[in-house]
Amino acid sequence: MTEFINEYCMHDHTCGELRASDVDAQVTLTGWVWHNRDHGGLIFVDLRDREGYTQIVIDPDCVSEEEFHVAEHLGREFVLKITGKVRARAEGTVNPNMATGEIEVLASGIEVLNTSVTPPFSIEDGIETDETTRMKWRYMDLRRPEMYKNLKLRHTVAQAMRKALNERGFLEVETPILANSTPEGARDYLVPSRPNPGKFYALPQSPQQFKQMLMVGGIERYYQIARCFRDEDLRADRQPEFTQVDIEMSFVQENDVIDMMEGVFKEVLEAAGVEHEFPLQRMPWKEAMDRFGCDRPDIRFGMELVELTEIVRGCGFGVFAKAVEAGNIVKAINAKGAGDWSRGDIDKLADIASANGAKGMAWIAYTTDGKEKSPIIKFLGDEVHAKIKEAMNVEPGDLVLFAADTFDIANAVLSALRLHMAEALNIPRDGHKLLWVVDFPMFKYDEETKKYAAEHHPFTMIPKSDWDKIETDPMACGSYSYDIVMDGFEAGGGSIRIHNAELQKRVLKRCGVDDEDMEVKFGHLIHALELGAPPHGGIAIGLDRLVMLLAGKDSIRDVIAFPKTSSAADPMTGAPNEVTTRQLKEVNLRTL
Amino acid sequence: MTEFINEYCMHDHTCGELRASDVDAQVTLTGWVWHNRDHGGLIFVDLRDREGYTQIVIDPDCVSEEEFHVAEHLGREFVLKITGKVRARAEGTVNPNMATGEIEVLASGIEVLNTSVTPPFSIEDGIETDETTRMKWRYMDLRRPEMYKNLKLRHTVAQAMRKALNERGFLEVETPILANSTPEGARDYLVPSRPNPGKFYALPQSPQQFKQMLMVGGIERYYQIARCFRDEDLRADRQPEFTQVDIEMSFVQENDVIDMMEGVFKEVLEAAGVEHEFPLQRMPWKEAMDRFGCDRPDIRFGMELVELTEIVRGCGFGVFAKAVEAGNIVKAINAKGAGDWSRGDIDKLADIASANGAKGMAWIAYTTDGKEKSPIIKFLGDEVHAKIKEAMNVEPGDLVLFAADTFDIANAVLSALRLHMAEALNIPRDGHKLLWVVDFPMFKYDEETKKYAAEHHPFTMIPKSDWDKIETDPMACGSYSYDIVMDGFEAGGGSIRIHNAELQKRVLKRCGVDDEDMEVKFGHLIHALELGAPPHGGIAIGLDRLVMLLAGKDSIRDVIAFPKTSSAADPMTGAPNEVTTRQLKEVNLRTL
Repeated sequence: MTEFINEYCMHDHTCGELRASDVDAQVTLTGWVWHNRDHGGLIFVDLRDREGYTQIVIDPDCVSEEEFHVAEHLGREFVLKITGKVRARAEGTVNPNMATGEIEVLASGIEVLNTSVTPPFSIEDGIETDETTRMKWRYMDLRRPEMYKNLKLRHTVAQAMRKALNERGFLEVETPILANSTPEGARDYLVPSRPNPGKFYALPQSPQQFKQMLMVGGIERYYQIARCFRDEDLRADRQPEFTQVDIEMSFVQENDVIDMMEGVFKEVLEAAGVEHEFPLQRMPWKEAMDRFGCDRPDIRFGMELVELTEIVRGCGFGVFAKAVEAGNIVKAINAKGAGDWSRGDIDKLADIASANGAKGMAWIAYTTDGKEKSPIIKFLGDEVHAKIKEAMNVEPGDLVLFAADTFDIANAVLSALRLHMAEALNIPRDGHKLLWVVDFPMFKYDEETKKYAAEHHPFTMIPKSDWDKIETDPMACGSYSYDIVMDGFEAGGGSIRIHNAELQKRVLKRCGVDDEDMEVKFGHLIHALELGAPPHGGIAIGLDRLVMLLAGKDSIRDVIAFPKTSSAADPMTGAPNEVTTRQLKEVNLRTL
Repeated sequence: MTEFINEYCMHDHTCGELRASDVDAQVTLTGWVWHNRDHGGLIFVDLRDREGYTQIVIDPDCVSEEEFHVAEHLGREFVLKITGKVRARAEGTVNPNMATGEIEVLASGIEVLNTSVTPPFSIEDGIETDETTRMKWRYMDLRRPEMYKNLKLRHTVAQAMRKALNERGFLEVETPILANSTPEGARDYLVPSRPNPGKFYALPQSPQQFKQMLMVGGIERYYQIARCFRDEDLRADRQPEFTQVDIEMSFVQENDVIDMMEGVFKEVLEAAGVEHEFPLQRMPWKEAMDRFGCDRPDIRFGMELVELTEIVRGCGFGVFAKAVEAGNIVKAINAKGAGDWSRGDIDKLADIASANGAKGMAWIAYTTDGKEKSPIIKFLGDEVHAKIKEAMNVEPGDLVLFAADTFDIANAVLSALRLHMAEALNIPRDGHKLLWVVDFPMFKYDEETKKYAAEHHPFTMIPKSDWDKIETDPMACGSYSYDIVMDGFEAGGGSIRIHNAELQKRVLKRCGVDDEDMEVKFGHLIHALELGAPPHGGIAIGLDRLVMLLAGKDSIRDVIAFPKTSSAADPMTGAPNEVTTRQLKEVNLRTL
């Protein structure tokens, strides 16, 4: 990049480039007026471009009268071309916090390439401007050094991903955006087809079907940095259109994909300047649920879940005893450092528990001065309480929070409480920590609809030893599926796919697909599997979220150039348009 | 790639890899049964993967009885894993036309990874299978070596493009697919927005507005291999969704972009194995029109247009004389080698002329035996005819075809006839020839609507010396725009953009944009230009067409994995779906 960055343009140096070693060089810079001020008859301008900024000095003795007049009337964000000579800054004015802080450029020529009206907000990092304003003038927001840094990080990550995959024999293949509905679960965006009245394309929720077809088509190793679409409501970590690094390989087993991806992630993290140990930990799904209560654990801190089911079985506290009797579980976390919290503050935690499905939340606080506070100690009895204290490794200053419920609810409650307490207690979670979660169950069971569905998706391969349980004991079916988890987020997930047509039909049938849908919705897939489909599997990495985490941001809106916002109405923010009746008529539609 | 191609998978060599130097190596291959035959008690299988194919020999003495039985019942396109030993082929059976033709693999183990029903067509290059069938089973079609080669070429071109741009300081930035209507001219695909009843996204016809916003946002150098959408009818060289390499730079003038892109094209062509001279020719638009009759000339052959207007002024042939009198032009081409064509064959050429707007077509044939045949010689008179012969460099065996019409029609007619005659006369057009066409006029005038429109687009910069002609003499306004032309196709086009808000408003007004539209449709752009927009420009390269030309194909359908076809109804070919009334109701629509 350094080779060409100053070629094919009006400048010969960027604004972030000049150093003491360049003193006396004749240079041309272009950029934006960031800050400007008069001092001692001279005009000082911080000229900014994407690479940094350089102090320009305009001395009336060194430029024409006309140019000095121009310099006196510069406004913020004017676009300039400056010719001048690099000189060392006077002693005492060197700025060690600025890459170009040792030098300044004494202008001999000034050209205003464009003017600017007053900017709607200051182009500074860490500005407090509300997001609606930032989004309305997104092009101004993008001029903030931090936004450029984030977009550059995204570029770096994407290129490192491509490089690693290219080297490993993967072919980048584009799959259609104007596609068909596939059973991914979320709502599709529909696109009316003009030559086919009443028929619609669907924007792809993922290229899953296409990438499987590419494997059947003998491409063997495919990837795509693919745009995907889900018509869901906006959230900080979710946009209706998002980007995934979509990867698929033939002639592989689970460990092949995982090993290959470790190499890719190693290169990507290095490119992003993140150090991490490899190989990554591989944690079975069951262990993740037992220890962290969720399948995407943040393992940068402890406060693990401890199962107390056997300890409290038949104890005097009815809530626990009855839960155990009903076949449910009792678990707890120990929030060290919260033992002195007030009863009121602790009670507020019950809201988090109930938001995750619990009916209440039991707790015991151990104050730093040795007291024990709890609504439940008196019921537990000394013996059980002592066992709990031992199991939970209790010390003065600890707060133990309990959940007694089904496996799903107890884990969800304590997982949420664990993350909340880590935040509240300011437990260090710096840096990044990746791991694999493996061995997901194949099916999940919906108590309400009394139906089985795929935990991952119905194209996931089942270990051969479990094939005979599909009809008889589906919940005992394992699967070759794996998620890569980063800092408590799912950074990606994948599986080995079913390449056997008969097995595919059995799994779809188990998931409630009837004979008609089997042909209409899945016929093309099943026919493809009948025509020499190779064993294959893959993974999809959420690029937006990965970059968000690497950039240390809370919102995906900070790592994409033109995000959707719920509030905005400016065309730049992608708010939808009105269309004419004629346009609608062309696609055979009318509004209700 | 060689480093990793055999890692993370079930094989240790590809089917295109083994050579005489590998003899005696123990290897595992995976792939598809391409051809299989029994011979002398042995079974021979050509095992194919994407990299090539290898002859496998199955000898009943070297595998188990069970495995030999399996081998006897293999079908075409079965998926196999073969373990065995490489051995030199017996003398006389070496195949020099096959990369692995010196060796074969004597199997010691056979595993059927998947079976296949009978394929719908043979997986061979150059097959005659009709396109509908190929598209319906596209995954089978993709197994043809040629399709993989084309997709790999596309990958190679895309990666070379990225590498060249990355090195030059360009950032790959993604812009929205759920976007707004922009005035690109073609019909938009609409996407109803569920939370905004009656409002619609439009799929982008190009990221033009977004990339200009990125320049206003200080990104300075942007590119994207961008999906674009136009709701137009299908053609061999046009798909409703297509891919362009979209590029934009700040602080540049026209030659900066052209010079930069020459370096990029040099690297891309090298990666694609194409030799070409650089720098490329730069031909002014006017010269391209004068010499070739079109702005995307195929300069791999001559047969240039010759203007005869002055020669025929006032001549005895009324059609020519009247055309000149009316201010039109008279031009001709000399199709060497067609002088002996029959009158009937020549008369058929008039259809091409009339399809391009001509009222008729004059011609003179000079037969190889020295005769002159023509319906017009007798009117021209000897003197004018002699001058024409001289101007057209006539020899025996030549056929001169004339057009006498407006500048636009005369050129369109002769351009079409030139290409037709090159095809008909089998004039060599091998290899590739790129050139720049520059200096397009800014405006074009529609005689019917009596309106001016932008020749390129209304964001194109006009040379400062022409600014005062925008209102007074628009047809005399030049522009900083440029196309890169390859083998008679427009491979890409771009321009320096207007960065001055006032100038942008004048140009839009000249193109008929009224005050309301100026604010509603272009307000965001104009406001952006008012806030310190840098000088900027760029280009867009049509990736599909570029790869199609490099692959030597006539149809874009041969260089993308899943093209749209008008005739197909299989989900794999992207035919649109029916949707339910409930789905339509969610987006506040009903069918007419």
